[in-house]
Amino acid sequence: MHSFSVLVSDFEARLQSAGLFPSEPSNLYEPCKYLLGLGGKRIRPVVCLMSNELFGPISEDAWHAALAIELFHNFTLIHDDIMDKAPLRRGFPTIHAKYGLTAGILGGDAMSIYAYQSLAEIKEHNREVLRIFNRTAIEVCEGQQFDMDFETRNDVTVDEYIKMITLKTSVLLAASLKIGAVLAGANEENCNLLYDFGKNLGIAFQLQDDYLDAFGDSAKLGKQRGGDILTNKKTYLLLQALQFASDNQAEAIRFWLQSSESEGKVPAMLSLFESTGAHTKCREAVQHYSQIAFDNLAKVNVSDNRKAHLLELATYLLHRDK
Amino acid sequence: MHSFSVLVSDFEARLQSAGLFPSEPSNLYEPCKYLLGLGGKRIRPVVCLMSNELFGPISEDAWHAALAIELFHNFTLIHDDIMDKAPLRRGFPTIHAKYGLTAGILGGDAMSIYAYQSLAEIKEHNREVLRIFNRTAIEVCEGQQFDMDFETRNDVTVDEYIKMITLKTSVLLAASLKIGAVLAGANEENCNLLYDFGKNLGIAFQLQDDYLDAFGDSAKLGKQRGGDILTNKKTYLLLQALQFASDNQAEAIRFWLQSSESEGKVPAMLSLFESTGAHTKCREAVQHYSQIAFDNLAKVNVSDNRKAHLLELATYLLHRDK
Repeated sequence: MHSFSVLVSDFEARLQSAGLFPSEPSNLYEPCKYLLGLGGKRIRPVVCLMSNELFGPISEDAWHAALAIELFHNFTLIHDDIMDKAPLRRGFPTIHAKYGLTAGILGGDAMSIYAYQSLAEIKEHNREVLRIFNRTAIEVCEGQQFDMDFETRNDVTVDEYIKMITLKTSVLLAASLKIGAVLAGANEENCNLLYDFGKNLGIAFQLQDDYLDAFGDSAKLGKQRGGDILTNKKTYLLLQALQFASDNQAEAIRFWLQSSESEGKVPAMLSLFESTGAHTKCREAVQHYSQIAFDNLAKVNVSDNRKAHLLELATYLLHRDK
Repeated sequence: MHSFSVLVSDFEARLQSAGLFPSEPSNLYEPCKYLLGLGGKRIRPVVCLMSNELFGPISEDAWHAALAIELFHNFTLIHDDIMDKAPLRRGFPTIHAKYGLTAGILGGDAMSIYAYQSLAEIKEHNREVLRIFNRTAIEVCEGQQFDMDFETRNDVTVDEYIKMITLKTSVLLAASLKIGAVLAGANEENCNLLYDFGKNLGIAFQLQDDYLDAFGDSAKLGKQRGGDILTNKKTYLLLQALQFASDNQAEAIRFWLQSSESEGKVPAMLSLFESTGAHTKCREAVQHYSQIAFDNLAKVNVSDNRKAHLLELATYLLHRDK
C-alpha cells in the first residue's frame, strides 16, 4: 500500500516523464506546462490510485485514469479562472493573466483533450470509465454555470448552494474514487460507496474552502483572503448569515453587498459571519458531511488496513489550514 | 445509398429528437441550442455517414460518431469566435456576442464533452475511433494556435499557412471520413485514402474560403466581406501577394497592413491581390488540392456508383459561392 506522499511523488514523476505536451506550438503548450508545473495537491489522481489499490496492486490503467483526471481538473481551473476573473492560482498568476485570454481558452481546451487521450489508453473497463468521466465532466460544467448564475441572483438557497458545489467540486472527487475502483474490477456496491465517500468528502472540503477563504491565513492560502466576500460570492457563510441574521445584521450585510466600497468590507463581513452564527454553522456542516463520508468509507468491503491511507488523506484534507 | 440532402435532413431530425441538452442550467444550454439551431452545412457528420455507407448500410455507431463530430466542430467554432473576436456566425450573433464570454467558454466546453458522450455510445472499434478523434482534436487546437500566432508574425510562409489550415480545418474533415470507414470495418488502405481525400478536400475548401472572404458576395456569405483583410489575416491571398509583389505593390500592401484606417482598405487590397496574381494563384491552389482529393477518392476500393454522393458533395463544395 502506498501513502499519499509516495503516490504524489510517483504521480509527479510520471507527469514529468510523460513528455505530455510537444514543444510546438509553444504558445499553446507553454501555458499548459506552466500551470501543471505550479503543482497543486494532486488529490484527485491520488485518490483514484488509492481507490484502485484498495482492491489490489495499482494497475497501469489506473495511472492513465489518474492522469486524465488531473488534466481535466486543471482544464476546469484554467477556464474557471477566466470566468471568475481570478488573478492568482496556487499563488501565481493565472494563465489568462500571464499569457492572455486566447492562451487560457485554447490551453484549457487542449488540456481537456489530452485528458481524453489519456483515457483512451485504458485497456479494460474503458467504456464504463468513459461514461463516468463524461457524466462527471458535464456535471462539473453545470456546477460552474450554477455558480456563475448565483452571482446575479438574490434568492439562492442553502440547498441550491450544496447542489452547486456538489456538481462543481465534489463529483470529480467522487468519480476519481469510483473510476479507481471500477478499474480494479470492484463490485458495484463498493464502487458506489467510494463515489459517495468522495462526494461527501468533496462537499465538506468545499465548505472548508469557503471557510478558509474568509477565515484562513492569506499567506498560507497563496491568494487574497476574503476574495469571496469582495466579489459578493454566495458562499455557505453568506447564505447562512443571510438566513439567520437579525434585522440589523441583515441590513448591515445588504449594505456591504450593495456597496462599491471594498475598504473595510472584509472585516465587517467576517464579523457578521461570526455574530450571525454562520461561522459556526459552516464548521458544523463540514463536520456533518465529513461524517457521512467516513461512514461510507467504513462500509467499503475491504479490510480496514487497506483503507488506512484514504482515511488519513481525508482526515488531513479536513484539518488543513490552506 | 443516401444523398447529401437526405443525410442532412436525417441528421437534423436526430439532432432535434436526441433531446441532447437538458433544460437546466438554461444559461449553459440555451446558447448551445441556439448555435446548433443556426444550422450550418453539416458537412462533417454527413461525410462520416457517407464514408460509412461506402462499405455497407449506415451503422448506429456511425450516427453516434457523426453527432460527436458535429458537436466537436461547433465547440471549436464557439471558442474560435471568442479568440477571433468574431461578431457573426452563420449570419447571426456569435454566442459570446449574444450571451457573453462565460456562455461562450462554458457552452463550448459542455459541447465538447457532449461530443465525447456521443463517442462513448459507440460499441465497436470504439478505442480506435477515440484515438483518431483525440489526435484530430489536438491538431485542431494546434491549428488554431498557429492561426493566432500568425496574426503577430510577419514571416509566415505559404507552407506554414498550408500546414496551419490543414490542422485547423482539414484534419477534422479527414477524420470524419476515416472514422466512418473504420466503423464500417474497412481496411487500413481504404481508411487512409478516405482520410487523404478529406484532408486535401479540406485544404481546397479552406483556400476557397479565403477566396470567398475576399471576393465572395457578402449577402450570400452571411458575414462581412473582406473580414480577413480588415484584420490583416495572413490568408493564402495575402501571403502569395506578398511573395509575388513588385516593390511598388509590396509598399502598397505594407501601407495598408500598417494603416489604422479601414476606409478604402478592402477594395485596395482586393485590387492588389488581383494585380500581384495572388487571386489566380489561390484559384489554382484550390484546383491543385481538389485534384489530389479526387485522385484519392478514385483509389478507394469500392465501386464507383457507391462513391457518387461523396463525389457530388465534393464537387458542390468546391463550386460553392458561400
